[in-house]
Amino acid sequence: MLKERVNDICRSAKDAFLELANIDESKINATLTTLKEYIESSRESIKRANLIDFNNARENNLKSALLDRLLLNDKRIDGMIESIEVLVSLKSPVGEVIEGYRLENGLNIEKTRVPIGVIGIIYESRPNVTIDAATLCLKSSNCSVLRGGKEAFNTNKILVSMIKKALKENGLDENCVGFIDDTDRKGVAYLSSADRYIDAIIPRGGEGLIKFVSDNATVPVIKHDKGLCHTYIDCDADIKKALDIAYNAKVQRPGVCNAMETLLVHKDVANQFLPKFYELMKDASVELRGCEKTCEILQDIEKATEEDWETEYLDLILSVKVVDSIDEAISHINLYGSSHSEAIVTENYQNAEDFLNRVDASCVYVNASTRFTDGGVFGMGAEIGISTNKLHARGPVGLKELTIYKYKIRGNGQIRE
Amino acid sequence: MLKERVNDICRSAKDAFLELANIDESKINATLTTLKEYIESSRESIKRANLIDFNNARENNLKSALLDRLLLNDKRIDGMIESIEVLVSLKSPVGEVIEGYRLENGLNIEKTRVPIGVIGIIYESRPNVTIDAATLCLKSSNCSVLRGGKEAFNTNKILVSMIKKALKENGLDENCVGFIDDTDRKGVAYLSSADRYIDAIIPRGGEGLIKFVSDNATVPVIKHDKGLCHTYIDCDADIKKALDIAYNAKVQRPGVCNAMETLLVHKDVANQFLPKFYELMKDASVELRGCEKTCEILQDIEKATEEDWETEYLDLILSVKVVDSIDEAISHINLYGSSHSEAIVTENYQNAEDFLNRVDASCVYVNASTRFTDGGVFGMGAEIGISTNKLHARGPVGLKELTIYKYKIRGNGQIRE
Repeated sequence: MLKERVNDICRSAKDAFLELANIDESKINATLTTLKEYIESSRESIKRANLIDFNNARENNLKSALLDRLLLNDKRIDGMIESIEVLVSLKSPVGEVIEGYRLENGLNIEKTRVPIGVIGIIYESRPNVTIDAATLCLKSSNCSVLRGGKEAFNTNKILVSMIKKALKENGLDENCVGFIDDTDRKGVAYLSSADRYIDAIIPRGGEGLIKFVSDNATVPVIKHDKGLCHTYIDCDADIKKALDIAYNAKVQRPGVCNAMETLLVHKDVANQFLPKFYELMKDASVELRGCEKTCEILQDIEKATEEDWETEYLDLILSVKVVDSIDEAISHINLYGSSHSEAIVTENYQNAEDFLNRVDASCVYVNASTRFTDGGVFGMGAEIGISTNKLHARGPVGLKELTIYKYKIRGNGQIRE
Repeated sequence: MLKERVNDICRSAKDAFLELANIDESKINATLTTLKEYIESSRESIKRANLIDFNNARENNLKSALLDRLLLNDKRIDGMIESIEVLVSLKSPVGEVIEGYRLENGLNIEKTRVPIGVIGIIYESRPNVTIDAATLCLKSSNCSVLRGGKEAFNTNKILVSMIKKALKENGLDENCVGFIDDTDRKGVAYLSSADRYIDAIIPRGGEGLIKFVSDNATVPVIKHDKGLCHTYIDCDADIKKALDIAYNAKVQRPGVCNAMETLLVHKDVANQFLPKFYELMKDASVELRGCEKTCEILQDIEKATEEDWETEYLDLILSVKVVDSIDEAISHINLYGSSHSEAIVTENYQNAEDFLNRVDASCVYVNASTRFTDGGVFGMGAEIGISTNKLHARGPVGLKELTIYKYKIRGNGQIRE
């Protein structure tokens, strides 16, 4: 039953896509503007629906961090409205001619940017993802099928009804945005395996969700996996910069994917750097877990285990390792890192270049905090998340990353000899 | 046992990749040149190994088409040598700065082209794929793990030994090219699920192989799936061009993925076009299978069934359908096509543009044969195949399509506020 319903929603989205792919951008912008007005004028109904979800979640003893993500207050509704305004102001990447040339035989080849198709978005308790994901897909001429977390079910439902109303109001097919209105987890599996209609799946959530989607997917997945980010303090680091950057990477917002989880320090500066850093961490209530050498320098911290090097804490905890060389640092990062964001602090030209070239990650920094990995910061205007894929899109996924290309070839009767 | 061996080969390739990614192109070109010389000077040993495979295959009653693919004669060895020479002459795409800009806060962001990593190549009886795949990956600074068809086992083994010798001779890690020296089909499954070490899988072969890989893969797959290509003769077609193009698309090389499998004809030109086309097809021994209307015009051909519209014949068979409108043609293509190559023949501007924009395929043609879809023809110099993916690479996959990007960010102490 549910399987058929998911399939129907996906098929309708595919049908809608074949029309949407060639709708003028002005119509899409008009739809986004209508949606913005609906959200603005329906604040109270949105908050009422959200309150039902919030109270249910509290009764079910949802953790306070998750409760916070679930909540839609006026400030967050303002945020949704602003993000739609930004999208309207951006130029759609669709239609860009990436390359164009003429062959000897007179064939004109144009490599043109087109939308991907129907994108399945699977997410957890944040209801604002409903608006962000649907509007980013729409702006890039993609259809979407949304499957949000069960905690936000009532909020998602009212938001989707507004999206569908805005689509219809502007003469677009309401199936451009599909919504799986069932909280059974099997729906996630069905969506991830609807490869006849769905062209890509973007899961947004914790490791458990990502693993469940990957295990069940026959549709290609643009993974938004964990961020196990390192900062390496080189032997030629400026110690003041190193303290600022490492502090910022750990403390400014510890619960996000581009925060630092492991600090690597070159042995030649460990005695100078670590005691000062320890004081900063103590003031910020960060728990340190060190390798043997770190524990010799900072005698009252806990020992790190193998598990610590593999853990994304998303919390005020940091593992610290003293390394003998930049090579050891790079090897450690390539072994334990999640290919998200990695930083070196150094004043040495060759070490900076080596780190940039030899660390295998989507974003590699010299003398800056890993916290900058973000579509907004990078100038993309908007992002659906940070990809840890090695194919298609790596790092922040904005409008352009939601497109692919097709070759248009214009001839005058050419045949192959 | 085999699982561990496959894992070891993949892990060694991953280790080799972290070095190879930053090796100078001159060293890679030197390796390719050495390999070319080894192949040139070892023709006789290669042919002897191939003869063992060929005789085994004949004893096992392999079909003659497959026997032909398996055979390595001097002409085909020349082809391998030439393809290596072409690769040496091409510029590597690695290192290209795709975008570069400075943020308000002074961070310099460079989006730079880098190799993907370790690519698993799974293929069938053609032993020249061993050389093509390994050298294309190497030229783009990727490592590869090869798993060829069991029929070509002895030929593949000697070719891989030359590749490894050439790598060592030039100071590169011989594990840059891995080879699964076991013909148990489980090896395909193990390779497709070695996601810890393998970054992408490219399967090259028939529908059965592609399905087996897709079903077993946890590694992202760049599919080289079937080519169910259509040619649509519009009501405003030039009939002479239409006959030439349709004939070429069907007959010039019927066994390949960019050949035509279904012909669509607008009802207004069906009476004029089909009888002439029928004569051409009869001369070329092509069997036609028609829809009801086609069979009214061409009375001695067989009726097409639903299955025909879904079949990639790869043979001298063609299904033919008369359509009422360009919309019906586009709908038919979007429903039954494999998103590979699709063509319209028309002199009507708006119909040409509609077809280019509304057909969802990697290559869409106006007034030319679908047979042109090819990396060599498109000017890529070399290709590993034609992707039917909607993500990452679509259409011919050359060196550039074997790369991804990383962001290099250079700062001077920036932290996030």
